[in-house]
Amino acid sequence: MKLHLLLTGNELMAGDIIDSNSAMIAEQIKDYGWRINKKVTVGDELDRLCSEINQLCDDADVLIINGGLGPTVDDLTAVALARVSGTEICEHPQALAHLTQWCKTRGFSLNASNYKQAMLPKGCDIIANERGSAVGIKLKHKNCLIFASPGVPSELRPMLSNEIIPTLDNLFPSDHIQTLRLGVFGLGESGIQEMVNSHLSDWPDDIELGFRASMPVLEVKLTTRGSNPEARLRQWTPRVTELLADHLLGELPISLPSATINALKANNLQLCTAESCTGGLIASQLTSVAGASQVYPGGIVSYSNQVKAQLLNVSEESLASDGAVSEHVVRQMALGAIKATGADIAIAVTGIAGPDGGSADKPVGTVWIAWGTAQELKAIKLQLPFDRTAFQSWVAALSLDLVRRQILDLPELPQLMKRFQR
Amino acid sequence: MKLHLLLTGNELMAGDIIDSNSAMIAEQIKDYGWRINKKVTVGDELDRLCSEINQLCDDADVLIINGGLGPTVDDLTAVALARVSGTEICEHPQALAHLTQWCKTRGFSLNASNYKQAMLPKGCDIIANERGSAVGIKLKHKNCLIFASPGVPSELRPMLSNEIIPTLDNLFPSDHIQTLRLGVFGLGESGIQEMVNSHLSDWPDDIELGFRASMPVLEVKLTTRGSNPEARLRQWTPRVTELLADHLLGELPISLPSATINALKANNLQLCTAESCTGGLIASQLTSVAGASQVYPGGIVSYSNQVKAQLLNVSEESLASDGAVSEHVVRQMALGAIKATGADIAIAVTGIAGPDGGSADKPVGTVWIAWGTAQELKAIKLQLPFDRTAFQSWVAALSLDLVRRQILDLPELPQLMKRFQR
Repeated sequence: MKLHLLLTGNELMAGDIIDSNSAMIAEQIKDYGWRINKKVTVGDELDRLCSEINQLCDDADVLIINGGLGPTVDDLTAVALARVSGTEICEHPQALAHLTQWCKTRGFSLNASNYKQAMLPKGCDIIANERGSAVGIKLKHKNCLIFASPGVPSELRPMLSNEIIPTLDNLFPSDHIQTLRLGVFGLGESGIQEMVNSHLSDWPDDIELGFRASMPVLEVKLTTRGSNPEARLRQWTPRVTELLADHLLGELPISLPSATINALKANNLQLCTAESCTGGLIASQLTSVAGASQVYPGGIVSYSNQVKAQLLNVSEESLASDGAVSEHVVRQMALGAIKATGADIAIAVTGIAGPDGGSADKPVGTVWIAWGTAQELKAIKLQLPFDRTAFQSWVAALSLDLVRRQILDLPELPQLMKRFQR
Repeated sequence: MKLHLLLTGNELMAGDIIDSNSAMIAEQIKDYGWRINKKVTVGDELDRLCSEINQLCDDADVLIINGGLGPTVDDLTAVALARVSGTEICEHPQALAHLTQWCKTRGFSLNASNYKQAMLPKGCDIIANERGSAVGIKLKHKNCLIFASPGVPSELRPMLSNEIIPTLDNLFPSDHIQTLRLGVFGLGESGIQEMVNSHLSDWPDDIELGFRASMPVLEVKLTTRGSNPEARLRQWTPRVTELLADHLLGELPISLPSATINALKANNLQLCTAESCTGGLIASQLTSVAGASQVYPGGIVSYSNQVKAQLLNVSEESLASDGAVSEHVVRQMALGAIKATGADIAIAVTGIAGPDGGSADKPVGTVWIAWGTAQELKAIKLQLPFDRTAFQSWVAALSLDLVRRQILDLPELPQLMKRFQR
């Protein structure tokens, strides 16, 4: 079944709103094994709308139109559908009944704007709208089945699941699709592609392997269909997880902080933070996860040297002789945080986020990270080629991952970060 | 000038990601008086891509292609452009130089996947990518000028403003549109609309007044064109700023943390933080601003009671009798942070972000905020009807705004928050 999508609305073209409806439609139809083949978005212009409907219908079994069913003058979908069908719009009794009832429930009588929504292409079917005034339209044009749906997401959603999808499922029954999404940290997109090329050359055609970067976490997606897609995925997933190895955080939705928190919980450990260059970002990411309080008593944002000395007991001598961005200081920060919070494990970071503050010796992008227990504290130095925002985000991500790796007894550094070590 | 947009990517068709790039493009070109006429989105299929490029070029002066420039096998834009141009892809010296340099900076050598990104349609021009590996492509097909740009928003943005828009501005000069964007905190969208309706009834037709919510900050936008749009805006802007009054943060790009940091700098004051329920978010937002170290020595994330007592000197007695979410505790947190960091002003927050941890007495959404100097410390209690993420984000925003208001001697609370005060 070949399905196209036509979105209409000046606000979509002007960038005033971001289209989330097409993602909702794609998500909902995906489990039925269908996908959107082509998506066209145009403004509220009648000629353009008519020509797009005609072109899209020539090339598809199904066309979903979204938007343009409202009460205002720029809502043109009904008129466009009438024109391409060579008919006219006229009062639709069921649509009128719905509108009358809809207004009555809300305590006002039908006005001219609302009445306009009862004027539909002659002979079309309607699709019930349980949330709003605009009914949907169903009609056949050429060999294409057209559904016209409202642009308001909360009205579109039930229309899709109650009427459009069941109709399609009846007309075009298909195998359902099974998808597995894995969260990965510390491998680049091209790095994974290389690994796949060299280690999964026997990968079967019926399981699609896709990647998506939403840095710093990368998503690896396995998709299959057929008579028993679950079993098919179960059979091949281990090959991928083996390849991703220590870089695999788990099945999505998983985030770096929740992966680290899970590791802490499973081992009954408490983590604290001492942040300079990340300025509270690590703490904030940890505490964005509900239930973080079980494993995270708190931390110190020691942005100034004075706070490093006062709250984390970093020696004035180290600060003066080695500088704030140094191994001595980062180790003292970690120990100071453990002492102050009573946690088992610390993350401490100190670096130069930029754009200013770098020197020949310690350029922007230099960072020292210390992590571990008071007894077994590790420290590394990295040089990261990112701007301020990305620098903070990568240092936070890596810090959380270093702790996860240490708790789970995995290799010390993720692949992607080795090149930045100094 | 007629401009079409072609977006490519299976992830866009599958609903895995929501396209925000086309809104970014529409926003940026709008100021030049241009708009997107038609937008087509297709998956990563070579035949479909080629036929769409051909069709769109027949009907437009300019085609912007977005996506499909990456290193993986499903990135097909370069190949498609070569095919429709009747040429082939070959190594592009400038692209190769960029890639080599890009890899070198990151400490690894060019692999096959990255090398693929140097293979471009013969004879095309490149568009520099200052943020990523994939250069853009510029070429003429039929009578249409094509720009191919990367799908990663942070790479697309500078490419648009540095190269694509200046090129178009040169080829298709038009009346410029003058736009003024104001950042506002503490007024709702409908609240502003009401204010406009009742106080700006004489607003002129040639200046468009628009709102855009990117909560917690709201954008108010004035747009005009004509022979002297700057003067026209200068004339009417004071009417709007007067209306927004203490809720106006300044001209965008302004953020809440930078507005607060500006106020601190102007008054030579230092701020510290003591965060419980926001868990470092306030600190993180402050330190996301370059130069924050001038006014922000640091803070404490006192997630556990033990850390509140140990690092902020909150009395065990208050914690036991009043509970962690109480006026006594939040005031002691603020004083403790000032003492520990040596700052002039503190923000302290303690509350119940949820989803768990609420009680009949202190339901989820309860928060105490204290702010001010040791001598003049204020505290308020609010009850916020938001989920965990929104709760943390609004508490952080309000806290920063309370400090800004105090320093600038503005009314204590923004309009929108009054209804939540308890």
